[in-house]
Parts: sequence; C-alpha cells; structure tokens
Amino acid sequence: MVASVPQVVVVGGGIRGSMFAATVQQHPDAALVALCDPSPSVRERNAETLGVPVYADLHAMLAAHPEATAAIIATPDFAHRDAAVDCASRGLDLLVEKPLATTSDDAEAIRAAADAAGSRVVVGFENRWNQKFIEVRDQLSQGTAGRTVTQVVNLNDTRWVPTSMLSWAAHSSPAWFLMPHSLDLTMWLTGTTPVEVFARGTRRILPGLGVDTWDAVSASFLMSDGSTVVLNSSWVLPESAPSVFDFRYELQAEHTAYHLDISYDGVTRYDPDGVSWLQFGVHERHGRLEGIPIDMARDFIAALNGEPRDLPDAAHGCLVTAAIEGVHTSLAAGLPHTL
Amino acid sequence: MVASVPQVVVVGGGIRGSMFAATVQQHPDAALVALCDPSPSVRERNAETLGVPVYADLHAMLAAHPEATAAIIATPDFAHRDAAVDCASRGLDLLVEKPLATTSDDAEAIRAAADAAGSRVVVGFENRWNQKFIEVRDQLSQGTAGRTVTQVVNLNDTRWVPTSMLSWAAHSSPAWFLMPHSLDLTMWLTGTTPVEVFARGTRRILPGLGVDTWDAVSASFLMSDGSTVVLNSSWVLPESAPSVFDFRYELQAEHTAYHLDISYDGVTRYDPDGVSWLQFGVHERHGRLEGIPIDMARDFIAALNGEPRDLPDAAHGCLVTAAIEGVHTSLAAGLPHTL
Amino acid sequence: MVASVPQVVVVGGGIRGSMFAATVQQHPDAALVALCDPSPSVRERNAETLGVPVYADLHAMLAAHPEATAAIIATPDFAHRDAAVDCASRGLDLLVEKPLATTSDDAEAIRAAADAAGSRVVVGFENRWNQKFIEVRDQLSQGTAGRTVTQVVNLNDTRWVPTSMLSWAAHSSPAWFLMPHSLDLTMWLTGTTPVEVFARGTRRILPGLGVDTWDAVSASFLMSDGSTVVLNSSWVLPESAPSVFDFRYELQAEHTAYHLDISYDGVTRYDPDGVSWLQFGVHERHGRLEGIPIDMARDFIAALNGEPRDLPDAAHGCLVTAAIEGVHTSLAAGLPHTL
Amino acid sequence: MVASVPQVVVVGGGIRGSMFAATVQQHPDAALVALCDPSPSVRERNAETLGVPVYADLHAMLAAHPEATAAIIATPDFAHRDAAVDCASRGLDLLVEKPLATTSDDAEAIRAAADAAGSRVVVGFENRWNQKFIEVRDQLSQGTAGRTVTQVVNLNDTRWVPTSMLSWAAHSSPAWFLMPHSLDLTMWLTGTTPVEVFARGTRRILPGLGVDTWDAVSASFLMSDGSTVVLNSSWVLPESAPSVFDFRYELQAEHTAYHLDISYDGVTRYDPDGVSWLQFGVHERHGRLEGIPIDMARDFIAALNGEPRDLPDAAHGCLVTAAIEGVHTSLAAGLPHTL
Repeated sequence: MVASVPQVVVVGGGIRGSMFAATVQQHPDAALVALCDPSPSVRERNAETLGVPVYADLHAMLAAHPEATAAIIATPDFAHRDAAVDCASRGLDLLVEKPLATTSDDAEAIRAAADAAGSRVVVGFENRWNQKFIEVRDQLSQGTAGRTVTQVVNLNDTRWVPTSMLSWAAHSSPAWFLMPHSLDLTMWLTGTTPVEVFARGTRRILPGLGVDTWDAVSASFLMSDGSTVVLNSSWVLPESAPSVFDFRYELQAEHTAYHLDISYDGVTRYDPDGVSWLQFGVHERHGRLEGIPIDMARDFIAALNGEPRDLPDAAHGCLVTAAIEGVHTSLAAGLPHTL
Repeated sequence: MVASVPQVVVVGGGIRGSMFAATVQQHPDAALVALCDPSPSVRERNAETLGVPVYADLHAMLAAHPEATAAIIATPDFAHRDAAVDCASRGLDLLVEKPLATTSDDAEAIRAAADAAGSRVVVGFENRWNQKFIEVRDQLSQGTAGRTVTQVVNLNDTRWVPTSMLSWAAHSSPAWFLMPHSLDLTMWLTGTTPVEVFARGTRRILPGLGVDTWDAVSASFLMSDGSTVVLNSSWVLPESAPSVFDFRYELQAEHTAYHLDISYDGVTRYDPDGVSWLQFGVHERHGRLEGIPIDMARDFIAALNGEPRDLPDAAHGCLVTAAIEGVHTSLAAGLPHTL
Repeated sequence: MVASVPQVVVVGGGIRGSMFAATVQQHPDAALVALCDPSPSVRERNAETLGVPVYADLHAMLAAHPEATAAIIATPDFAHRDAAVDCASRGLDLLVEKPLATTSDDAEAIRAAADAAGSRVVVGFENRWNQKFIEVRDQLSQGTAGRTVTQVVNLNDTRWVPTSMLSWAAHSSPAWFLMPHSLDLTMWLTGTTPVEVFARGTRRILPGLGVDTWDAVSASFLMSDGSTVVLNSSWVLPESAPSVFDFRYELQAEHTAYHLDISYDGVTRYDPDGVSWLQFGVHERHGRLEGIPIDMARDFIAALNGEPRDLPDAAHGCLVTAAIEGVHTSLAAGLPHTL
Repeated sequence: MVASVPQVVVVGGGIRGSMFAATVQQHPDAALVALCDPSPSVRERNAETLGVPVYADLHAMLAAHPEATAAIIATPDFAHRDAAVDCASRGLDLLVEKPLATTSDDAEAIRAAADAAGSRVVVGFENRWNQKFIEVRDQLSQGTAGRTVTQVVNLNDTRWVPTSMLSWAAHSSPAWFLMPHSLDLTMWLTGTTPVEVFARGTRRILPGLGVDTWDAVSASFLMSDGSTVVLNSSWVLPESAPSVFDFRYELQAEHTAYHLDISYDGVTRYDPDGVSWLQFGVHERHGRLEGIPIDMARDFIAALNGEPRDLPDAAHGCLVTAAIEGVHTSLAAGLPHTL
C-alpha cells in the first residue's frame, strides 16, 4: 500500500540533496515526492534525473504535496532553521544534515517545532555509519578497554573546500563544517558529553583568498567523564593532498589505544596529475547507490517504518550545536567556555 | 510465491558454510533448505543456529530435499569435486568456494557435470566484491591508465592458518589456498589470462611444525597481453602480525600506478596482547550479515533470480585451477610451464 | 696539547650520562675527566666501562679535578639546578639535558650562575640534531612555505616509561618529560616563542599504577607570530605499541604542509613477542657511538673548541621551562596562562 | 705527513663523482689529487668547486699524477672496465660504483687487473651503509630469527631516471641499474649467494619514450641456503610518485619477519607541486658532506689507511655482475639460468 510508506520531500538539490533523493527513490519502502531548490539549473538537473516535481520554493512544495510525511534537509548549514521549522511544524519527520544548525537559537527552534508537532528529527552524523567507528564503539562498549583518557581527532580539508566547493564558506568555518563530525564521534564512541571548551585559531590565509573565516581551529574539551578531547580542523591543506579531507582519530584508554585513518582507505593512485587516495564513500552497485550516507538515509527510512534504530536526535543535535557555538565563543573571548 | 525463489542447500558447515547458510536464510528472495557436514558437533551447532534439517551425508540430504535448486559448496578445497559433481548432476546451480578444485581433472569434471545438466556454476572469488578492487577495475577499464606493465601481489597468512585454522593444510599449500585469489584478481582487473608460469618455493618451516607443505611460493606469470604478474604467498608469517593475512596489491601501467593495502583497513588497536588491525570482512548490522562474501552470495542469489550479474564461471574456475596446478608443476620441475 | 681540549666531567651515570661520557672519551678533541653518581652500582659499572675516577658526590669530584673545564649534567630533571649551579659557578661550561629545570626559579638560578661566571650553557634539545627536522627547518627558512598556520605535535610514551624506566616519574609528568622536546621544536622550526598557553589533562590511570602524576596532557599555545601550536603528550600508551615513544609532528603553512613520523623509521619487525619498530637513535659503528644525541654532544665539544655552532642556550632553556611551568599552571587553574 | 695518506683521483665528474671528490677533499686522512671527465662543462664546474687539476682524459691524468695511490670510478656503468683496469694496472686501489661492470667479462677483467697489481677493489654497494639494513643484519646474525624462507625486494624508479637523469639508459636496464643494490643486500643480509635465476620482463613503454630497454624486470633467485629471493625493478613509475625511487624490502624467516621502507623516511611534504617524501641520503653539516655514500667513501679511505673494514670486494662484484647478467640471459631465453 503506497500510502503506508514514508512520502519524502527533499529540501536542497545539491550533491547531498540529489544523493538522498535518489536513495529514497531506490528504496522499496519509501517514496520520493518532490524536491525544491532556489537554483533553476539545479532544479532542472534534478527534475531530469529524478522525474519528480521540483519547486523553487519550500512553501510551494509543501502546499502542493500534503501527502508528504518526511523531509530531508540538505540546504547550506546556516539555512537549516527555516526549512526544518517549516517542515517540522507540519508534522513531517526530518533528516537534517549535520550540524542541526549554526546557532543554539536555531537548533532549539527546530527542536521546539518538532517537539510541538510530534515530529521525529534525525541529525545526519554520518560517521556513525562507518564500520570502522561502529567496530571501535562495539569494542569500547564491552568495557575491556577501561576508562578513556583522551581522544584526539584531526579532520582537515584542502583549501578547495572553502574556496571552490562551498559558495557559503564565509558564513561557516572549519569548526562549523568539520567539528560536528569529530565531536559527535567522540561523544558517541565513549558515551560522554562535553562540559567545557577552550579554542584557539588562526585567520590569516583564507581571508586573503577572499573567504573571511578561520583557517584552522583547535578545540580542547573536558568531557563529562573527566576525559579530554582535542579537535583540530583546518581548511587550508594544500590541494596536492591525496584526499580532499584528512581524517585521523585516536583514542587512549586504560588498557587499549586505537588509531584510525579514515581518509586513507588502502588505495593509492599515482598518475600524471599527482597522488590520490581512492575513496568509497558513495558508489553505485547494480544501479543502486551504496555507501555510508546511503546507509544513514536507509536507517532514517527504517525508523520511519517502525524499525528500532538508535539515531542521533534533535536533543543531541542541540548539544553539538551548542558545543561548536562554544568553540566560537571561546575563540572570541580567549577563555574557556562552560557548556 | 515461495516455490519461485531459489531453494538452497549448503555443503559444509564450517565458518564459511554457516555464514553462507545464514546469508541465504536472511535473504528475502531465497530459502535455506538444509545443510550437511560429516562432523556431529558442526551439525549440532548449525541445527541450533539455523533451525533447518542437517545431514551427515550429502546424498541423504539431496534425496530428502528434491525441492533444492541450488547448492553452496563450502567443503575443504580438495573435496569440492565430489560434492559439486553430485549437486550439479542433479541440475542444482552452484556457488563453489575458490578454487573450483585442486586438480584440473577435478575442475573439468565439475564443469562437465554442470554443462551436461545445464547448471550454472559461480566460483567464489570474493575479492571481486571488494569495493577497492571494483573501483580500480572501473578506472582501468576506462583506458586512461594505458597498457599494463606489471602486477605484483603479496598475499600471506600467519602460520596460524596452516597449523591451527585448517585441519587439511597438508593437502593444500599457500599456492592453492591464497593464489587463486591473487591470480583471479590480476586476470579480472586487466582482462587477461596467464599463458606461462615459473614458480619457486621453500618447504623448511611447516614440515617441522607437522604440516608437510610449502612454506612460501613465488610465481611469475606471463599474461596474454604480454604483461607480467608476480605472486608471492607464504604461510609462515609470525603470529604477532597485526592481521591473520597480509594482502598488498600493486599495478604499474603506462600512465598510472596503484598500490592497494587490503589487510590494513585503517584501524589499529594496541592492547595488552599486541597490535592488531581491525577488519570488517563480515559483520552484523540490524541482525543481518554484511560484508564482502555476503555481497557475493547475494549476487549469486540475484543471478539465480534472473538478474544480470557478471560472475566468475566454471570455465574461469578451470583456468585458475590449471594455472595454480601449473605453479606446482613448475615447482616440481624447476622449469617454466606453459598454460 | 692535552690541556687545550675541554676537560669534561659528567654528572649522573645513567643511560644518558654513560653515553655522553663515552662520547667524550671517544672524541679526539675532548677529554673525559671523571663521573659522579650517588648509586654504588652505577659508579662501579661506569668505572669499569670508562676507566676514569668515579665519585659519589659532585663536590668531591669538582674538588678533586680542578682541571675540569666543562660538565655534562645528566641527573634526573628536577635535580639539574644544584648540579648545574655548582658547576657553572666554578666557570665550567655546561651541557644540560632538557628541560633546563622544572621550575623557572631553578632555570633562572642556573642562568644567573652561568652568566655571573661567564660559563656557556647548552640545553640538550636533541631533536635539533635529527636530520628530518633540520631539513624541514632549512626549507621553512627559505620562505616559500609562507606563514605558518598551525603545528600539532603528538609525543607519547608507553606506560613503561613512568612505571619502569624512570624511578622519579611521580616528580615529573608527561608534560615535563616530553613537551620540552615538542615545544622547543615548534619554536626552533618557525622562529617563534609561545605567548600564552591553555592546558588540559587527566590523571586517572597512573595514580592507580603507583605513579601519582598526569596520564596525559594537551596544551594549546598562541605563538609570537599569531600561529597556534597544539602539543599532546601521554604516558599511558599500551606496552604493545611498536615503539616506546610515539612521535608525530605536523605543520600547516600558507603553501605547504609537512607530516613527520619520528618514531617510525621505516623498519618493522614481527617476532614471537610482538610488533616493533627498529630505531637508530644511538648505535655503534667501528667502535664509536653514533646518533642524534652523540652529534649534539659533539657540537657541544666543537663549540667549546671555538667552532661556530648555533646551540640552544640558557635563555632559551628558561623560556621553555617557563612555558612548561605555564602548562602546569594552566592545568591547575583551568584558565589560559600568559607567558 | 701528507705522503702517507691516500692520494685519490676521481674518474667521472657527474653527481656522484663530484660528491666523492668533495668527500675525499674534506677528509683529514686523504688527499684529492685530480679529476677527469670528457665533458668540458663538467670539468669546468669541478675545477671551480674543488680547485684541483681536471683532465679530459684518464691517461693524461694518470701520467700527470704519478703520486696517485687510489681511484674512485664514477663513470657510467658500462664504462667501468676501461677506467678500472687502467687504474688497477698501475696499482691504484679502487672504489668502483656498483655494478662492478655490466658483463662478466668486464668484471673479471677488472678483478684480474687488480689481482695482478695487488690493488684493492671496493664495489660501491652503498646500502650496506644504511643503518636500517645494518641493524637488520646484526639481528639476523644473532640467529634468533632462524632460517630464512624468502626475501622480496621492490626497487623501482620513476621514468624520470631513464628518460631524463641518465643519458645512457638505453645501454642499461632497470635490472642493471637497480638489482645490483637489491641482490647485494639479500646476499649480505643472509650470507648467501644466488645459484639459479629465472627472470621475466616487459618492454612496451620505454621504447616508445625513446629509450630502448626493459620497462620492468622481475627475477626469482634460488639462494645457496635453499631460500628464495624475488626482485622486482621497474623504470616506469609515474613522475608523481613521492620519491624518485620506491624501495621496499621484506624478509620472512623461521621466527621473525621484517618489512623495510627505504624510500619513505618519515617526512612527507605537500606543496603546490604535489606530494613528496623528503630524503636524507646526502646532506651538508657544518660544511661537510654527510650521508650513506659518504660513509662508504670514508670506509674506503679508512681501509686504505689500514683500518679493518669488511667491504664488498672484486670477487663479490663479479658474483653480482654474473647474477645480473644471468637475469638478462634468462630474460632472453625464457628459461632458468644456473649461476
């Protein structure tokens, strides 16, 4: 019965929005209803690929599709609030890309709207679907590693990300763009929350490249269990780096330590243009998308279909947003900030 | 309609047989019928886990289950022939673990039985389902890398494999156990076949450990396109190695080179027992097995259900068996062997 | 003319003291005069190996050897002050192991004594003699890398160091033992000094192992050029780690980034006891010690013999000590500390 | 007394010849007498840098410098014979770059000339001065690793070497240029000699680039102790490789395995031009050259001055040349070749 599966609209038709739309469309237990995006060329491309109605405006889409029961929010980070609140207010369940929002105000507004309407909110912390982290978390949860001492996470992008990939980089920062991932992981892996942050950064390269934001930020967190977390994120790696992102995670616990290379997946190519690490985040197999964010979207659909799934919710999204906001507060004040 | 999905029996209830049986059982478009294994304890374990009839004897199982339409052969390598011929002769489609057999005679007998009965045979060269190799093959097939010059593949096991994991190691060798994987890959990645082999090896450690076979074998192949392939496989790595297997692949082509680490998947654990690399070959997610051999078994089922799949067939299995047989011929003769 | 070469006494006959003593003895342009150490067994061992007079007491040694012109101070860190002040006061030139001292008071007292007597002080920041860092510094000094953005240094020890190697670990910390190295490097490589530090740490594992100090400390520095430095140092790595120390350095600059593995030197051994990385810090060649600290000691001798050498002096040692003291001040106060 | 130190002439003023000349000149116990090279510009450059007489012709140099007691032969490989025989015949002791020669005829002629005149010959297998290999050899010689099973050595160059660095690449091959290094190492590390070789190669890329030689060669050796050696050498790595050479060595023995990265020395640079590994083969310190080939040249001088040194001699050079000649014989015949 078609009516019984989630009827999904997608807000934002960029790389991620199109990918999620296709994932929904390929799913036997979900239906893609429509997509909206302000850009005519993006709309045209998605209309062609997906064959569903496309809209310039979220409100028009929602008005035209009262059958929608869920929405995937894939707009730029700073624009999550309006889209998410509108959709949640109508009772749609939401998958919102990380971070939930870029101010606590925005994040809390989304949570409030969802709570009021009884909407479910899932925040897209997709690294939780990476088998490497899943396995480490399973092992840690067995307890033999003992108490955590410290976690250090380096998650950097080449300067291509702020200068070419994102049109809205000046409204964001390496902290807003990258640390939601790394902070969420440290919380999820060890079952802790951050209680205080101190951050330091530099802004000397990107402003000169026309993107007025931080080059690099380092943040030191005290966690609820007394352990420490250090996050380093930069947006200025040279473009010759073998991967657009450089992602390394390490944990030291009482009896065990882990080192994870996330960006290096075992495959290096040397060609006339340089050295590159092949990556397998999203790929097609027998006509279906596969990969980490696809698994996440499928678990969102599974949850909508009533299957038990332990997913990052709005309250968690608010915590992470508050913590990254705290990073920027500490950057501005030069002092530790209590969360 | 239940009758329309493949009705699968599994021959051999060890690690791999149980895994394949569970995969079939979890599949919406296949049914697990029964399993057979000569060991009472293995039967008991599988009966409990799977809840299907188990048999000591293949013939008894086949006689009891005329509804069977497919079989998965997961016996020791040298025992593939009897099981596969019996099953194929009754018209069952087969997934046979690599290598198809350990003599050309056996391999050809399987092929002949299957051809005569119109059975489909898939040989379990599971590395073809590893996304790392899939991606490299896709790139190579685009042609920009140019002609292949050479491939070098190191695929070694720690001595735990021949001395503890396999009861039948003395009937096999690192060449029979490991090189079907590495040779198949070189053929599949570059679309070539081996035309001549020269091999050299040592047998000085394992015989002293009670396993009368080769410690290590190196084989040099001339391929049909004039490129070369060097395969190195040993069974005597120290048990302190961070992974039971050590698998590295490299290719040099006209414009491009690739280096693949297969056993290192980016996650290192340091604990009181030593250093280990976590691996993700097979894992459970939401109650379902996932991983490379699972994807292979699913593609076998998909093919049985009429979906188009490009799978390694009996003719290919015969080629690989003949080539590894040639490795041992060359080892014995000290001369190159034409394939 | 024997009298014209430096006449060197060594204070402390442990691993480092013996090594420096042998280095002096093997040097054509220096003479080893005597060594002192409070431990009878240490004295006996050194007397046998070196064949020079050994003393239990520094004062006795100095009184017995008025010909001494230089001293190498290789006592535990916290004991540098007394030895160094005594030697400097008599006009001896000094090579003092890093850190110069573990309080600013002690460090300044050493500097004052040396200044008053006109003694030269060299602080043993031996990583400056590691060709890897020398090469990076040379490249950075050419300016093409552009302005530095951030440096991140991980320098950890296995728990063997505080629990077995050092009898005086509870008087020290991973910050005192390891960060002088990493901080000195960041200063030397980029020509900057630290102006503010914030630090965070945990003390949950080592106290339970009978060593009442920090398990791990992370420190975030603002440098004089506006760049940032993050230092992470722990003393609780599992003993299965392939190297007693884990040392990784990275720098991001305007146009260039560097990643340095210091503990991994390219050689891995797998044996029945585990996985280890071979290291080449100090080795013997043709009966002479060679290696990084040996080169440092030779440059100390060269400087004493009037050759031009750019060496870390007492003022620099005081700066580093003040900064590491600041790490502990920040740890105690939970606030950034201005240096 | 000047007359008592070796009086050294250098034959060939390229990169290596100049480097050796400077090494001799900087040595307190040797004197650089003169250098010869057929190229006027090379002569001019060396005359300026070194300030010693330079000659176009070896004979003229030898005639003008009867005081010469030793020669360093740094001509192209195929030209070693004439230079070495001429020098040896006059009783000069020789350091000859590896390989001793590129035919057994040439190598034996050099050995015979040296034997007749009582000259000492050292062949420049410089990897024996790499501390990584020295340490592995020391450990192997202690016997705890047990019997060797197999050694695999990959030593490749980017195509820049045959197409740009060497004017005479078409007279050589990756086997002649690279395998003397790798074969010598396997012999030296395990105290064995090769008894049979089988080789395979391709020549499809370099001829098209105007260098008519092999792209890549793989050689399989049976060693005198029954162990095996596999050498892979190519000259066609893409120029984007992080190092001009790619050098990896591995050994499996009864109880122990070793993996050595030689080209990766722990330092990676990312800059606008690509990814590179910094290397430290030869560098200057306080105005003196330092590094692996410098240590080799110094040991040559030490031996000339009567110090005990265990150096690769002409007989060993003849063995290696015969083995590499055997590689080419096997390549041509397609059969194993007994050495």
